[in-house]
Amino acid sequence: MKTLTKEIWKNISKRREIVSIHSEVEALVRESDIRDGLCYVGAMHITASVFINDNEPGLHSDFEHWLERLAPEKPYEQYAHNGFEDNGDAHLKRTIMGREVVVPITDGKLHLGPWEHIFYYEMDGKRKKRLLVKIIGK
Amino acid sequence: MKTLTKEIWKNISKRREIVSIHSEVEALVRESDIRDGLCYVGAMHITASVFINDNEPGLHSDFEHWLERLAPEKPYEQYAHNGFEDNGDAHLKRTIMGREVVVPITDGKLHLGPWEHIFYYEMDGKRKKRLLVKIIGK
Amino acid sequence: MKTLTKEIWKNISKRREIVSIHSEVEALVRESDIRDGLCYVGAMHITASVFINDNEPGLHSDFEHWLERLAPEKPYEQYAHNGFEDNGDAHLKRTIMGREVVVPITDGKLHLGPWEHIFYYEMDGKRKKRLLVKIIGK
Repeated sequence: MKTLTKEIWKNISKRREIVSIHSEVEALVRESDIRDGLCYVGAMHITASVFINDNEPGLHSDFEHWLERLAPEKPYEQYAHNGFEDNGDAHLKRTIMGREVVVPITDGKLHLGPWEHIFYYEMDGKRKKRLLVKIIGK
Repeated sequence: MKTLTKEIWKNISKRREIVSIHSEVEALVRESDIRDGLCYVGAMHITASVFINDNEPGLHSDFEHWLERLAPEKPYEQYAHNGFEDNGDAHLKRTIMGREVVVPITDGKLHLGPWEHIFYYEMDGKRKKRLLVKIIGK
Repeated sequence: MKTLTKEIWKNISKRREIVSIHSEVEALVRESDIRDGLCYVGAMHITASVFINDNEPGLHSDFEHWLERLAPEKPYEQYAHNGFEDNGDAHLKRTIMGREVVVPITDGKLHLGPWEHIFYYEMDGKRKKRLLVKIIGK
């Protein structure tokens, strides 16, 4: 069994932003030299997500408005979590979008459908945060 | 380490439908001859889900109404994604239901609780789409 | 490839409660003697979740109120599932929170960010229910 482990740092200048990490993950799959296995990609912070969906700006704008409707940022005092913080909404939004994805690797490549694209979704940015890639296989 | 990889095609005649893929996944676990490991099952399209829940029609009807409340199909123009498409809602609904599941394999079988059942949830059907099964273990 | 498999029983006295399973999972990682791999932790029942987020009571109270808003428990007759049961809401709430998590293991430890903590979320308690841990690696 072979493995590869890599933490990736991000520093998003806005509070919320969707950024592609697709080519970074692809490069790690090549570096791992694993032909057949599973690739884990997950946020290491509890106010961010890793998710797979369409690389289409209209959809990303829809996600923003939809998450604001399901878990509004303001008023901050609506969340018990916001005693010393203002990121209660980010914990809930990330719950909707998910923490992690697992992607099979076949023939040395991410085994994905035609429109699947891997993204990092920052929901409480303006600081350095990490995500984690772990690949296992043969 | 042993592996099995299989794409399964579906062609759902309706826009939305929940269909069992449980026995198909069980058959692949047997075919893999893996006694101990992990079984990944995921949608390869970004407007469909693989999820685990109860095999009970009332609940499936509840999912339909609930997802329509959280991410309504119409009016189509409420979603920026719907410039040339009408499936903006399907991308959001699938986000709620999830893209993939991982199920442990123990003693050559899916290691599940008493009521756990594996489903494919089509949210933008009327065409051929794929899901992926990858099993790794020993 | 080494593996460890363990079912953990819980008997939560309330209908809904968030309980830490973090140290139990950590102990199983040590017991497995696996230095590098993946740790799966999932609910075996379809009205409960395993999730990762902040170990902070205010946030847990926010989850409670938020889930009640997205998928209210009452009136029971709003759910088609509630013919002979009253837990329709629990199936939907667990869908939001997720069924399972996968956590990489590096250097013999759960590879987590600074605030990540593993929880079991009971949504239809007052009876014995199980969750499952499966660790694979080398």
